[in-house]
Order: sequence, then structure tokens, then C-alpha cells
Amino acid sequence: MIFTDLTSQQKQVCTWFKTLQEKICARLETFEDNTAFKLTDWQKEPSSSSQSPLKGGGRMGLLRGGDVFEKAGVNFSEVYGTFSDKFAAEIPGAAESNGEFWASGISLVVHPRSPHVPAVHMNTRMICTSKCWFGGGADLTPMFMNAHAQDGQDFHAALKGACERHKDVADYPRFKEWCDEYFFLPHRDEPRGMGGIFYDYIEEDWEKSFAFTKDVGETFLQIYPDIVSRHKDKTWSAEEREHQLYRRGRYVEFNLLHDRGTRFGLMTGGNTEAILMSMPPEVKW
Amino acid sequence: MIFTDLTSQQKQVCTWFKTLQEKICARLETFEDNTAFKLTDWQKEPSSSSQSPLKGGGRMGLLRGGDVFEKAGVNFSEVYGTFSDKFAAEIPGAAESNGEFWASGISLVVHPRSPHVPAVHMNTRMICTSKCWFGGGADLTPMFMNAHAQDGQDFHAALKGACERHKDVADYPRFKEWCDEYFFLPHRDEPRGMGGIFYDYIEEDWEKSFAFTKDVGETFLQIYPDIVSRHKDKTWSAEEREHQLYRRGRYVEFNLLHDRGTRFGLMTGGNTEAILMSMPPEVKW
Repeated sequence: MIFTDLTSQQKQVCTWFKTLQEKICARLETFEDNTAFKLTDWQKEPSSSSQSPLKGGGRMGLLRGGDVFEKAGVNFSEVYGTFSDKFAAEIPGAAESNGEFWASGISLVVHPRSPHVPAVHMNTRMICTSKCWFGGGADLTPMFMNAHAQDGQDFHAALKGACERHKDVADYPRFKEWCDEYFFLPHRDEPRGMGGIFYDYIEEDWEKSFAFTKDVGETFLQIYPDIVSRHKDKTWSAEEREHQLYRRGRYVEFNLLHDRGTRFGLMTGGNTEAILMSMPPEVKW
Repeated sequence: MIFTDLTSQQKQVCTWFKTLQEKICARLETFEDNTAFKLTDWQKEPSSSSQSPLKGGGRMGLLRGGDVFEKAGVNFSEVYGTFSDKFAAEIPGAAESNGEFWASGISLVVHPRSPHVPAVHMNTRMICTSKCWFGGGADLTPMFMNAHAQDGQDFHAALKGACERHKDVADYPRFKEWCDEYFFLPHRDEPRGMGGIFYDYIEEDWEKSFAFTKDVGETFLQIYPDIVSRHKDKTWSAEEREHQLYRRGRYVEFNLLHDRGTRFGLMTGGNTEAILMSMPPEVKW
């Protein structure tokens, strides 16, 4: 196995993702008086029933039943293993690594209690085969699209700023379009939310790519709490709550039917509890 | 298109599936004092955004908010079109029909309000390419597996009876095992429920295969209401309701991650509302 001794770069990204997880949990907890994140370390024990001998572990951060956040999952993971031949053929550099890969990342989904506070998703990661690259993104999902035009503008402006601070590796118009294409439900002919940025295979310059990925995390850490603050004290009607529960169904449909990360994780024997932490706490169809 | 004029066999199965839909709706409605099925006819208008020019239509039957049934969907459909080359390669007789296919069936999912009344799924269908065959099945999903051993035994005994009345085409041990294999969640290492039967590619003798398929429907019409009657008047605790909402999450996970019918229907431009009528009315994760 090529990934039992980590390179300096791999150690740096793991340290950053763990630090970012701590920072995000701490920032979100400032909204809650009575609820905190529960952190759970896990290690993957390859079982005989698992299709893929995925190894590694991570730290799940889960906050449930808060006044502001009904459910928030913030996960760090570091895993390694071997892709199937079929899958390896689609992954850059995997042929040259005999299918071996290593991946580390942070992934979060926040489902606020109030229908007026947008849900959000953010994920950044580094993946290595015979080469290493960064990917990730962040996207905002208000329950009432029209009423949140300003939130959408500000969320996009913040991410645009991050891209423009790292012009050598980040291209905001392309990453925005990529996000719109990715977070789309063809069976509903609907976007999942208001978009944001999505990027992958950023590898030209490791230092600059890492700096950009760190900036995406820091930018999220600033803009999402700002948006939460704007709406968290508004009251809502039973009808607005029903609309939220109904819209959350779309979130489930996207994640289970279309999301590459979710499907790939579940199909390759990843940590089910960590992967499905993205599921909303309560949903109606 | 080879399927614009229906054969006598195709007309017979459509008539049966429509009749069965009416019978099942009428039977389930006997449990409800204030709620009835709403029937909606639909026709597929091939849109430019649809990946597949699926044609045809159907009748959706939906009951919501009943005292006994929180949500029950009973759908009839008759559709035809052309498989993609990739998909046609996996379907019996599709190479000889140039990928053209015709399909008609009835599909139902019932989500009772009480955690003590098992959920159920039943589907029977005839599919034609250059040849025609029957498929389908029925399976029971109690929310408390241990407490429903008798229901499971009786449900299985009823379906075993149907198979034994049609021994030339139906093999209960094989169909039971097929069901257990199919309704399994590998990412949870759990069965979806208590099983039942699952069968496909029954084509040896059309008359006998059709007679068996009709018997599966009639058998369901007898045994499921029996099981509902046993439990419908029991009271339940808030804790039992929470358990039901949590178990329903598994139902969603199975249908969106694994169910061939759901994924195939959505990916080929089927009627999203009809296909996702199987989603539970309320779910928690």
C-alpha cells in the first residue's frame, strides 16, 4: 500500500481539514444556548461483507435538536484503499497507482429548524492516486427561493471573492456553472437550490490549490453565519414549516439518486452513518 | 413503432391491472370513514428535455391523511418506447425488437398511520420486447419486526398458496429467496422488511403466467387487509411513532439508492409523481 506513510502535503491537508472542522463547529455552536456538537471518532474495520477494503477513519461532528440548527453534520475523514478496475479507469492517475487512492476531506450539511434560514452544504477534499488534486464547493438551499435573492447574491459574492483571490487556480464563472449543472434534479427539472461553486481536479500548483481550498473553507465560515444571523429570529407559520419539510424531500432525492459522493461512498463500503449524516432530520412527501 | 396496436394479450392484462387497481382502492377505502382515493389520469407528453421518448399513460390512485392509511399509492400504467442501446443489451428480446418495448403494470405502496400496521408493497407487470413476460411480487415491512412474526408467517403462507396453485410457472422457495435478495440494503447490512415473493421473466406459458399474476393480486387483496384489521385499532406511543418515522428512512434509502424500478423509471423520463408516490408521507433521520 502506497499510502501508509503520508507525505508532508497529505499531513498538512489533514491538519487543515481537522482545524476547519473545529472552527466550523465552534462557530455554529455560538448560535445555540443548550446544544453542542457531539464528536465521534471512527475507524473503518474492513469487514468480509464489504465490497471494498476501504481503510482509514475520521471524526463525525453532529449537532441535533438545536434552537437554530435542527441537524448539522460536520465530518472529517481520511481514507485509503483500492478502486475497482472499472472505477479506476475513470479516475485521473489511478491506472498508474494500480487503483490505489488516498482521500481526505471535510463535508458538512446544515438543516436549520426555521424555514427562513437556508440549508447549506460545503465540502473540500484532496484525493491522491499517482497524483494529487483538490475538489469541493459550497451551495446554498433556501426553502423560499424568491425571498432569498439577497442571500444568494451575498453567498455568491463571497465565493467569487475567494476565487478572485486565487486567480491562478480558481475560475469563478466556470465553478459557478459547474455547481449549477451538478446540483440539478433532472427528474424534477429543478435546481437543488441557489448554487454556489463546485470544482474538481485542481492540481496545477499544489501550494496555490491548497491556499484556494483553505480560502473556500474560511469564506464559508464567514458568509453562512452572516446569512443565518439575518433570519434566525423570524417566526414562522405551520404552513411555512410544511413547505420546508416538503422541500427537504428534494434534498433527499438529490443526495440518494444523484450525488456522486453519497453513492460512491455507500457503494464502496464507506461509513454509512457519516455519509448519510446529510439526510434532513424530518421530511415529508 | 410496433406497440401502437395492442394484441389481445396486452389488452387483457391492461384490463386486469385496471380492474385490480379499482378493487384494491375500494377495499382499502373500507377502512376509512372520511377519506377516499383521488384518481388522476395522466398521459406522457415526450418533452425535449426528456432523455427517452417514453409514451403512454396511466392512472394514479392516491389516498392521503386517512385514519388508517397515512398515504397509499396505487398506480396503473401502460407505457412504450425504445430502450437505449446500452440498456437494451440487458433486456431479454430487446435486440430483436430494435430496443422497442411495451410495459403495463400495477404498483402500490401503503404507509399506514399506526406504527403497529405494517407497510406493504405490491407490483405486477407484463413487459414486451420481441417476447412478453410477467414479473412482480409483494413484500411486507412491519416497523417492529419481532412483534410481527405471525403477520410475516401469514403473509408468506398466502403467497406460498398462490405459487402452489400455479406450480407450472411459480416456484415459491425460489421467489421467496429472490425477494430476500432483492429487498436488502447492503449499506445498512439489513433486510428492508419481512420479505414475500419477487419474480421476473415468467414467460413459459402465457395463459398460466397471466393466471398466476392475477392470483398474486387477488391474494394480496385478501391477506393485507386481514393484517391491517388485526392492528389498526391499537393505540401507540410517541416513542413508537418516532421509531416508525426512523424505519421509514430505510424505505426511502432502499427505493432511491437500490430499487431498479424507481431508478429506471426516473432515469428514462417516466412520470416522477407516479414513481415517487412510494415515498413515505413523513420520515426522520
